Amino acid sequence: MSQAQSVELKLQNPSGLAFDISFASGHKITVDGGEEFGGQNLGPRPMQLLLASLASCTGMDVISILQKMRQPVEEYRIEVAAEEAEDHPKVFTSITIKHIITGKVDEGRLAHAIELSDTKYCPASAMLGAVAQITTEYEIRQP
Amino acid sequence: MSQAQSVELKLQNPSGLAFDISFASGHKITVDGGEEFGGQNLGPRPMQLLLASLASCTGMDVISILQKMRQPVEEYRIEVAAEEAEDHPKVFTSITIKHIITGKVDEGRLAHAIELSDTKYCPASAMLGAVAQITTEYEIRQP
Repeated sequence: MSQAQSVELKLQNPSGLAFDISFASGHKITVDGGEEFGGQNLGPRPMQLLLASLASCTGMDVISILQKMRQPVEEYRIEVAAEEAEDHPKVFTSITIKHIITGKVDEGRLAHAIELSDTKYCPASAMLGAVAQITTEYEIRQP
Repeated sequence: MSQAQSVELKLQNPSGLAFDISFASGHKITVDGGEEFGGQNLGPRPMQLLLASLASCTGMDVISILQKMRQPVEEYRIEVAAEEAEDHPKVFTSITIKHIITGKVDEGRLAHAIELSDTKYCPASAMLGAVAQITTEYEIRQP
């Protein structure tokens, strides 16, 4: 076992819901609730961050592998969406991650890069994939 | 089942690892890898975002419940840290969340608020708690 980075949060205002989050990397972001829940929408929602974590975790694996394979990626977008349960706690029951690559990229190599991330490298995929159904899709667009 | 917010990511530069993330709430953040992995540290790491998601999810529950109980919170900080597995995928094996509240807050009510979040309201706790051991601690500091 090794120590992963720790994260610190501070409530902006005791009458609100916004937290300022400080990362060991030196960066800060703010999260907040929506106005319908007593927040002021000063930042994204916590469960949106969960999707952002998952998509960026796998995205960094995939682009890193494609770079090693010398694949000519010109643009790389990811769309991630989730269905949530109706009852509390409203866990994500299914998550869809769509990788959209522009460039003359070999389809087999892209599929292999995504599979390596899904099954071997991305901790967020391994953790969330154990409790929600994660579906991965990809699309290659010609430049 | 209902649709949760979706999130979109765009790779900043095909030779780097940084992604710009756009949330349905209208906000944007950037994540990046460390320089040791080919990134430029332009933002926090994806797995740090996972911890931020978990801590802010439960933190918004707790402060929201304490506000409803009219507890005089003056300051609220959260520290979250995780141990990760040594082998790929380096999943979090244990996570510790420490709630640090300054104010003349009733200890029993704080403990109850945290328990309600842990067991009933926070989707991130429910999902990640199924695959990692989550330990919750709290401290009340007198103002």
